[in-house]
Amino acid sequence: VADSLASNSVPFDVYPDVRVEPTDSSFKAAIKAAGAANYDAFIAVGGGSVIDTAKAANLYVTNPKADFLDYVNAPIGRGLPVTHELKPLIAVPTTSGTGSETTGVAVFDLESMHAKTGIANRALRPTLGLIDPDHTASMPNRVSAYSGFDVVCHALESFTALPFDQRTPRPIDPKLRPAYQGSNPISDVWCRWALDASARYFRRAVRNPSDSEARSAMHLAACMAGVGFGNAGVHLCHGLSYPISGLGTSVSSGGYRSEGYSDQHALIPHGLSVVITAPKVFEFTGAASPDRHLEAARLLGADVTWKKREDAGKVLSDQVRQLMHDLDVPDGLQALGFDASHIDSLVEGVLPQQRLRSIAPCPQTRDDIAGIYQASMRAY
Amino acid sequence: VADSLASNSVPFDVYPDVRVEPTDSSFKAAIKAAGAANYDAFIAVGGGSVIDTAKAANLYVTNPKADFLDYVNAPIGRGLPVTHELKPLIAVPTTSGTGSETTGVAVFDLESMHAKTGIANRALRPTLGLIDPDHTASMPNRVSAYSGFDVVCHALESFTALPFDQRTPRPIDPKLRPAYQGSNPISDVWCRWALDASARYFRRAVRNPSDSEARSAMHLAACMAGVGFGNAGVHLCHGLSYPISGLGTSVSSGGYRSEGYSDQHALIPHGLSVVITAPKVFEFTGAASPDRHLEAARLLGADVTWKKREDAGKVLSDQVRQLMHDLDVPDGLQALGFDASHIDSLVEGVLPQQRLRSIAPCPQTRDDIAGIYQASMRAY
Repeated sequence: VADSLASNSVPFDVYPDVRVEPTDSSFKAAIKAAGAANYDAFIAVGGGSVIDTAKAANLYVTNPKADFLDYVNAPIGRGLPVTHELKPLIAVPTTSGTGSETTGVAVFDLESMHAKTGIANRALRPTLGLIDPDHTASMPNRVSAYSGFDVVCHALESFTALPFDQRTPRPIDPKLRPAYQGSNPISDVWCRWALDASARYFRRAVRNPSDSEARSAMHLAACMAGVGFGNAGVHLCHGLSYPISGLGTSVSSGGYRSEGYSDQHALIPHGLSVVITAPKVFEFTGAASPDRHLEAARLLGADVTWKKREDAGKVLSDQVRQLMHDLDVPDGLQALGFDASHIDSLVEGVLPQQRLRSIAPCPQTRDDIAGIYQASMRAY
Repeated sequence: VADSLASNSVPFDVYPDVRVEPTDSSFKAAIKAAGAANYDAFIAVGGGSVIDTAKAANLYVTNPKADFLDYVNAPIGRGLPVTHELKPLIAVPTTSGTGSETTGVAVFDLESMHAKTGIANRALRPTLGLIDPDHTASMPNRVSAYSGFDVVCHALESFTALPFDQRTPRPIDPKLRPAYQGSNPISDVWCRWALDASARYFRRAVRNPSDSEARSAMHLAACMAGVGFGNAGVHLCHGLSYPISGLGTSVSSGGYRSEGYSDQHALIPHGLSVVITAPKVFEFTGAASPDRHLEAARLLGADVTWKKREDAGKVLSDQVRQLMHDLDVPDGLQALGFDASHIDSLVEGVLPQQRLRSIAPCPQTRDDIAGIYQASMRAY
């Protein structure tokens, strides 16, 4: 990218201080740096952290009067509509996971609350995404595994999300629909593709970085699942992941660290924090839409011919668990440093995530959520 | 629409003179009428003819200095890029066929040449499409059948089009890619959905207008196939259809007329002119991409388990023919008034359609095209 800009005489600055798993401080630092110059456009080269940081910088430098919380999702922020024009943003994903190049969502960790939240508005959507699997060639093994699980969960959660026509209250005008509007026939198209591709190519892409067919398919699947969840939305795996990653930096001795990720600070990789509760999430949601759960399991490679609808959640759960086992995902929350003493704090972090909780296929009590965390202490 | 505009105090004029299967004269009349007023926006309520006419009016009234041929596809027109800004255009399709609400294409019959051509530029794409199956409730039986065959052919042609990475010469910049860029993984997603939906719902939607499940699925399939062909492109069924509809107004006594369509002038409905050669087109193209043809046949409902790759064209052809038979499509070109004496003129009308011919899965000689027409004289 730098060579291309230079050879076309386009002056540019590189902002190197993006934080892996951004926080409000890291967003604000990027906004401050971008605000000091007067850039014509932004280019985000990296994974979701980089693309989301560029979205936030673009949003706030183009409206310097805005307070940071103005655009952050309610109830934590004010969730104001975006009415000003942003600069062009070109997103070049170098992981096969985020889908951020297709969405109007930027996620960050609000440090004062130890909870992830975000900004969701279609104005944030990049002008252009460049989806080239060669950009993933140097992705470390754990990054390809965990970003791939993010893809699988994006697709599974959007595909099983509450159907858009069952979401209440209905807005009086389509323009007032939330960014995460529930499953719908258009998002379904993308999710099905991503699940089918993941069944066939995810293991190959992780195990053999030079398998360009598999890496290409997973890079496209990441983008397609992005279109799916960017319009349908994600629900409990993502909702439950935010407190996991929020607390993950402080549990056990110095927080969790994973091979292949930045060693400057402790972090639970996003895809890992998302998939770690997935088996128990889908066991919990299965009864609310058994046909969807069975179809998702089939797309992920399960033979569902003789499976009963009442076992739908379990069938999908087993399929996800098999994939986790094959790709060496740690054995549950306990392997990330959590124990029963953390469950209350985890649950507290989920309860305010109304935006995600409300499009799960069924409502959840505090006990339901605590139960999912408890049952996710071990995965296998 | 009129009630909604009136109740919101939005002044409007209705332009009632859209021609079913537009011509350059009918486009020019609409452009003239629209140019006389200074509208803020356009709303197209109808089938492809209405939406395409609104696109043309919008394109030319926003650049009154342009000559009509400036934007018409080369070699008939100059194919100039569109660099000015158009007005908002809202498309409300009332047939389940065109997909025009999703595309940057407007097709018309150039009367002086008795040939269909068009304008293809993403600037023409409507700002918004309203896809509501209730709008198709009063669609006559033949309109639902022929517009549905347009959907099937949009999907089949885009799905079997030359893959985008095999099209030559390759442009040096992605911006210079033609609107019809060949089959690609994104268009494939939409085509597969449309074919699968057509296999399950097309017959039901035609036979029972009150079957809202089927009508909904076909209305969505029309839109999805529109996204597919709007990016991949259509090839021989559409390329061969243009001279059929061009000549169809003059063959036999006074030209062909179909129940359910305007009786002000003779016309061969677009979907009928497209599907009438489809069985022979896919027999011809099958050898160039047998796997794609077999998959398309399977999506349309064929059991391809034991079919040989060398029979792929025939297998898809048979599947299309069965659908035509079930939905009472006339028995070939002879039933529309054509005989062997018309073949030379038909072929002459196809040869200049480079834009469509070049993305067919294999090149075609003059004799190949004549042979397809000859073999399409009877369908069953």
